[in-house]
Amino acid sequence: MEIAEMEVIPVAHREPPLRNSWGVHSELAARTIVRVTTRDGEVGVGETYGDEQVIEALEGAVDLVEGRDPYEVRPLELRLQDSMAYGAIDTALVDLLGRAHDEPAYNVLGGRVRDEVEFSGYLFYKHADSDPDSAAIAPEEVLSAEAMVEEARQFVDRGGFGTLKLKGGVLYPDEEVRTLDLLAEEFGRDTPLRIDPNGTWSVETATRLAKRLRGMDLHLQFLEDPVPSMNAHARLKRRVDYPVATNMFVTEFEHVAPAVEMDAVDVVLSDHHYWGGMRGNVRLDDVAGTLDLGVGMHSNSHLGVSMAAMAHVAAAMPTLRYACDSHYPWMADDVVTEPLSFEAGCIKPEGPGLGVELDEAELQRLHRQYEEGDPLAYSSVSSMAAEYADAMSDVGRSDWLPNKPRW
Amino acid sequence: MEIAEMEVIPVAHREPPLRNSWGVHSELAARTIVRVTTRDGEVGVGETYGDEQVIEALEGAVDLVEGRDPYEVRPLELRLQDSMAYGAIDTALVDLLGRAHDEPAYNVLGGRVRDEVEFSGYLFYKHADSDPDSAAIAPEEVLSAEAMVEEARQFVDRGGFGTLKLKGGVLYPDEEVRTLDLLAEEFGRDTPLRIDPNGTWSVETATRLAKRLRGMDLHLQFLEDPVPSMNAHARLKRRVDYPVATNMFVTEFEHVAPAVEMDAVDVVLSDHHYWGGMRGNVRLDDVAGTLDLGVGMHSNSHLGVSMAAMAHVAAAMPTLRYACDSHYPWMADDVVTEPLSFEAGCIKPEGPGLGVELDEAELQRLHRQYEEGDPLAYSSVSSMAAEYADAMSDVGRSDWLPNKPRW
Repeated sequence: MEIAEMEVIPVAHREPPLRNSWGVHSELAARTIVRVTTRDGEVGVGETYGDEQVIEALEGAVDLVEGRDPYEVRPLELRLQDSMAYGAIDTALVDLLGRAHDEPAYNVLGGRVRDEVEFSGYLFYKHADSDPDSAAIAPEEVLSAEAMVEEARQFVDRGGFGTLKLKGGVLYPDEEVRTLDLLAEEFGRDTPLRIDPNGTWSVETATRLAKRLRGMDLHLQFLEDPVPSMNAHARLKRRVDYPVATNMFVTEFEHVAPAVEMDAVDVVLSDHHYWGGMRGNVRLDDVAGTLDLGVGMHSNSHLGVSMAAMAHVAAAMPTLRYACDSHYPWMADDVVTEPLSFEAGCIKPEGPGLGVELDEAELQRLHRQYEEGDPLAYSSVSSMAAEYADAMSDVGRSDWLPNKPRW
Repeated sequence: MEIAEMEVIPVAHREPPLRNSWGVHSELAARTIVRVTTRDGEVGVGETYGDEQVIEALEGAVDLVEGRDPYEVRPLELRLQDSMAYGAIDTALVDLLGRAHDEPAYNVLGGRVRDEVEFSGYLFYKHADSDPDSAAIAPEEVLSAEAMVEEARQFVDRGGFGTLKLKGGVLYPDEEVRTLDLLAEEFGRDTPLRIDPNGTWSVETATRLAKRLRGMDLHLQFLEDPVPSMNAHARLKRRVDYPVATNMFVTEFEHVAPAVEMDAVDVVLSDHHYWGGMRGNVRLDDVAGTLDLGVGMHSNSHLGVSMAAMAHVAAAMPTLRYACDSHYPWMADDVVTEPLSFEAGCIKPEGPGLGVELDEAELQRLHRQYEEGDPLAYSSVSSMAAEYADAMSDVGRSDWLPNKPRW
């Protein structure tokens, strides 16, 4: 087989005003669809971030990919030296090999070790958008513990999620801890919960809150990135007994050994958008298994191609044992003909390949939407920090800067 | 695809009386050939050890393998829980997928990162066989430093090996060190050398010899298993500055973390016969790369199927950077129609699959030879220790027992 063409197609999709420690998700978010086609017409699709640097790296990779045997991925990865660009290409080539041989993507990765992949209900505090034109997306504000319980109820009723993850770092820490208590009250005291303050707590604050949480009747699986750095997590872990998960300070294979050496991490959150694509995520799972670390899965905003890829790769990762995260239930647009749905919080990956087809009309519409938008607005951090600085005053921080730890 | 049949075919092949710390290789050695065939007639071949336990484990795996999609290897590995049996099956399935899709085996593993794989010239002291019937195999005795230089000269002239590995643990340690010095004298002082005493030296002896070696004008790449245990290697590494390689105390993924924690190892020697087959060796290479360990490749006596598998998997392992070991130049029999040969010490793996074909007549002849032999004699350790105990007197150890450290 030989790859004849690689297309790089940026798209912009609508997003609700989800809150995190950097601010508010912008109304339009960018993603990139990668499509590879072989000389004999086999097709494979991948999806990744839509930041300009990623798009540039992907466009720069076209010459390396075209003309290549789709099996030759490792030398491609080594040459590319750009984990986000490679991640999308790897996904497209896994899809392509699966389709070409009529096998599900998880079989291209060595076979599934579970039939269904569990996802957590990913709960965000939400900013009430002041722009009436975008009110259709998410008119309601969720900036209190009580409002969060209502949001979670909708989530659980719709997707059947049995594990709940709270994106924290938005309200004052004790209010977020109170949110966890209300969630446990609502959904059962043994419901697996997580909180991810995105590194906004100090070691002292996280220590105090962890001890408070231990005194409450709830099941917190782990603290996700409670404090800002590898060293802070090592210090925290000497003081508290909750497992610590991260997708912030262990994001490359090079970070694993120092994190283990410092005993700074218990659970590594994988992500096939970096970490060497779908194959690299299986590799991370193997490394973590060898080092007795736990494995979960991180998510940023994404569309249906990534949703399918996440389910397939998670099915092929033996060490993974935490419900994966996904922003997918929040997405208003999609590029696949049949958006995936959660049953009892799970997705059952199916082939051939990733098991999804691109909706050509929607792909082109979202591509036009991308071209008409402001590229700067697609860079998540800057847009959230600058454009929505006013929104910070909602929680009493009109002088807000993204410094960490904040509390 | 669906696997219709899995055949387990033990064979016995002639071996020269190579010496190691356990004694002398027996005249006939056993290997097992595994052949899988799909419903539509695609075939794949693997090779592994011929010990009775391995054969039993393989025969016990037939029901798990037959009826399975050859892509579904990870769940098979997890179910099997026998790394040697799995290794042969994994190799056969890599070969099968490669042949079925007309791709070389290294592409099934993700693509090659090198075109040619370098092997070391693997030098053994040899016992002069007293049985005139088997004199055809290796009449000459190699039990001195000077005789070893002659053997090495033949090896280098024939295979072009640029790296030399001395199997030690046979002569008194200082005599083996003198052998290294003579090899450096003969082949150039910058020739990469290794010595593998199979754990027969004490920490004190290894420390003394390492310092002696540092004072000599030669290039020793690493000490391979100089001392008997993980703890002994950790102690040794605090005293000497040579890298330490092992295929004895890090032989499973579970051993990696403690060895790193204790700083007991610098180079892990992979082997696709265990370590999860060809795919598992790529996995080990990834784990080692993540932990900044070096990777080489171990060898036991083997035939052409394993030779091809070793070259293919080594081509797909990015972290591997030491010439691999192979007993192959010593083998008098083979099961493949076209035995592989070394050029300038290298093998260039070619497909489809492993790129080898079974010689049906030889396979059957060696299988009959196996059936007519004594199964107990095929268990390498016991045969060498018991049957050849007298041979030990050659080096003045008629009261020999396989205790370690010996010196």
